[in-house]
Amino acid sequence: MFVTNLYCPKCGNTYRNDSPVQVCTCGSPLLVEYDLDVVKSVFEKEDLSSRNPDLWRYRELLPVKDEKNIISLGEGMTPMLPAGKAGKKIGIPNLFIKDDGIIPTGSFKARGASVGVSMALELGVKKLAMPTNGNAGGAWSTYCAPAGIDAIIVMPKDAPNITRKECAVSGAYLYLVNGLISDAGKIVAKAVKDYGIYDASTLKEPYRIEGKKTMGLEIAEQFGWKVPDVIIYPTGGGVGLIGIYKGLKELQEMGWIGSKMPRLVSVQSSGCAPIVKAWEEKREDSVFWENSETVAFGINVPKALGDFLVLDAIYKTDGCAVAVDDKEILKYHKIAASSEGLFMCPEGAAAIAAAAVLRERGWIKEDERVVLLNTGSGLKYPDTVNIDPPLLEPGDSIAFVQ
Amino acid sequence: MFVTNLYCPKCGNTYRNDSPVQVCTCGSPLLVEYDLDVVKSVFEKEDLSSRNPDLWRYRELLPVKDEKNIISLGEGMTPMLPAGKAGKKIGIPNLFIKDDGIIPTGSFKARGASVGVSMALELGVKKLAMPTNGNAGGAWSTYCAPAGIDAIIVMPKDAPNITRKECAVSGAYLYLVNGLISDAGKIVAKAVKDYGIYDASTLKEPYRIEGKKTMGLEIAEQFGWKVPDVIIYPTGGGVGLIGIYKGLKELQEMGWIGSKMPRLVSVQSSGCAPIVKAWEEKREDSVFWENSETVAFGINVPKALGDFLVLDAIYKTDGCAVAVDDKEILKYHKIAASSEGLFMCPEGAAAIAAAAVLRERGWIKEDERVVLLNTGSGLKYPDTVNIDPPLLEPGDSIAFVQ
Repeated sequence: MFVTNLYCPKCGNTYRNDSPVQVCTCGSPLLVEYDLDVVKSVFEKEDLSSRNPDLWRYRELLPVKDEKNIISLGEGMTPMLPAGKAGKKIGIPNLFIKDDGIIPTGSFKARGASVGVSMALELGVKKLAMPTNGNAGGAWSTYCAPAGIDAIIVMPKDAPNITRKECAVSGAYLYLVNGLISDAGKIVAKAVKDYGIYDASTLKEPYRIEGKKTMGLEIAEQFGWKVPDVIIYPTGGGVGLIGIYKGLKELQEMGWIGSKMPRLVSVQSSGCAPIVKAWEEKREDSVFWENSETVAFGINVPKALGDFLVLDAIYKTDGCAVAVDDKEILKYHKIAASSEGLFMCPEGAAAIAAAAVLRERGWIKEDERVVLLNTGSGLKYPDTVNIDPPLLEPGDSIAFVQ
Repeated sequence: MFVTNLYCPKCGNTYRNDSPVQVCTCGSPLLVEYDLDVVKSVFEKEDLSSRNPDLWRYRELLPVKDEKNIISLGEGMTPMLPAGKAGKKIGIPNLFIKDDGIIPTGSFKARGASVGVSMALELGVKKLAMPTNGNAGGAWSTYCAPAGIDAIIVMPKDAPNITRKECAVSGAYLYLVNGLISDAGKIVAKAVKDYGIYDASTLKEPYRIEGKKTMGLEIAEQFGWKVPDVIIYPTGGGVGLIGIYKGLKELQEMGWIGSKMPRLVSVQSSGCAPIVKAWEEKREDSVFWENSETVAFGINVPKALGDFLVLDAIYKTDGCAVAVDDKEILKYHKIAASSEGLFMCPEGAAAIAAAAVLRERGWIKEDERVVLLNTGSGLKYPDTVNIDPPLLEPGDSIAFVQ
């Protein structure tokens, strides 16, 4: 409704938004620009109280023109949970966890899929293809089904098993690859080139990020338009972090929040930490991470197309990037469940581990308000919990539990 | 806050609500009574617009006295999705699916657990025990963790695998049994008797149902306080249906909805249909269903303690009970995913199958507004989808998809 054009954050080129466009001729991802003066003249904070608790409440800051193209399954306005018990363990009493496990497909990828697929539908796309570490493929397949769009999904064979079921049950064309997401990406790129299919790979279309930015809008709304001090985000492709930054900037321009910006933190696994390495070396982009490996499969992304945008958001907000070991991830995974009742995805647990490290280093102060993103539900990762419960026969008794 | 007492819907006995009480001396479940005159004098529909989108928005109609005892993970106000595409296939264009898969623990059991555990905490309970077909155990374990209550959970070894992980990761004491939920129930009953543990079995404590009734409150709110014509509910223990009925009655007494009540429909699998059989025979209670079996594991309950309350709600609302085959359940499971993008639990799919049957019989009219409950996420049931996707090597190509 209020989109003026697409623009390239690297070379400044602009593009029209009324037909499918992928990336800039310079190779950079494209971003969506709004006429925020008009938006703020027709959209007020008070309007939100009568709207549904999903991300389409921010309709004026989203790109879909015709409401009938919106494919929504109730995604967004996920819980902002005070996590004082876990917070006290790591010296951050004002710790909050935004739980994006409570969302269709059990992953924050639903945000990008809802907006991305709605726009694909609006632009007349009939077929799209994408590589995925699992959750994005599950989400895009799910939203493509009601949109009537064919989804062609390629994922590593080691991606979470349930995500291939999500693709299949929605009627997507699913392929596994004996490799990493980068291998899947090459297969998709070839299909896109050979057959002229719409490329829905991370940041190769400009609308997924618009869905992801609603995490930033929601955080602002949930804190009464006074943003927290720090936002910690597990980073694979980094679209969420780029989106949060973009969303908060838009709110600033509209005057909905003040000039203060949260310090944005990118968390990666020490087994795949290209953004962290680049940040430590004060670089503007990252280098492909060889032989990457981590239990947090969703952030096993050796080189992200939007790396320079992630790094820019970190630099501009005085944020940082931090790597955590798989051992620490699994430790905080258990702490979150046993102290807060949060069965997180390993990526979310990585964010707690990072909060602990940053508090130890003094980078986070004791009284600061810290929000971390749990990007998905632990229900999709049964293998992070290993158990061997006793098997009883009917009529058996159990011993008293002390 | 506004609870006056507990009462027995069978013999009329009343009980105080300030210490843990299980069932009536006559053996019947107990229900919670509120002073609705006072509630309606302090609680207005308009209050809701400024409250969080979770079930605690109906705080005045819930039993917890002290806010600090509330254990909440953001459960409730789940999406009410128009399901016109699936609806048209079965001749019900005004079909809506309330998706209780979008909730902590991926199951509507979170509602009962949030309220039930909060009350257990308020009443000083230190340990509780329960049998479960999986989801309730996962939910109660999850909520007991932040409450600091020990949960002792016994579930059939065939219960969904992920639910045992939920129990374990939360620190519950988990036992499997080589049998059905009724066998698990006997083991729990013995432990409760031997060790004096709080019995959190279905309807053996009066508060779980208060959490479940919020489904009814939300349906009313989501339809602008004009209730739909029919509500279809997959029935195992039946607490949800009893709760929906209780919640709507309370809204009626408060004048928030009119005198019209939706016709309530209980759906069971033809492999375990004690409520359906009782309803067909116009009985007031059900008979234990021998050798029960169904793919919809959550409704494999051969005899429910609250059967008479389920049947009463059906009779009082001119509702009905209907059984559907596993084959139909799996058929509609696929239809929901491929047409609506809803990866449902098999119990939710059973509700669509039932809607189709009732429309065919003419029991549901074409223009009626029908709401069915999807009681959980398909993510917890990977085995309902069988696939064998092609495995590619890096560098491979894929064929064009027609």
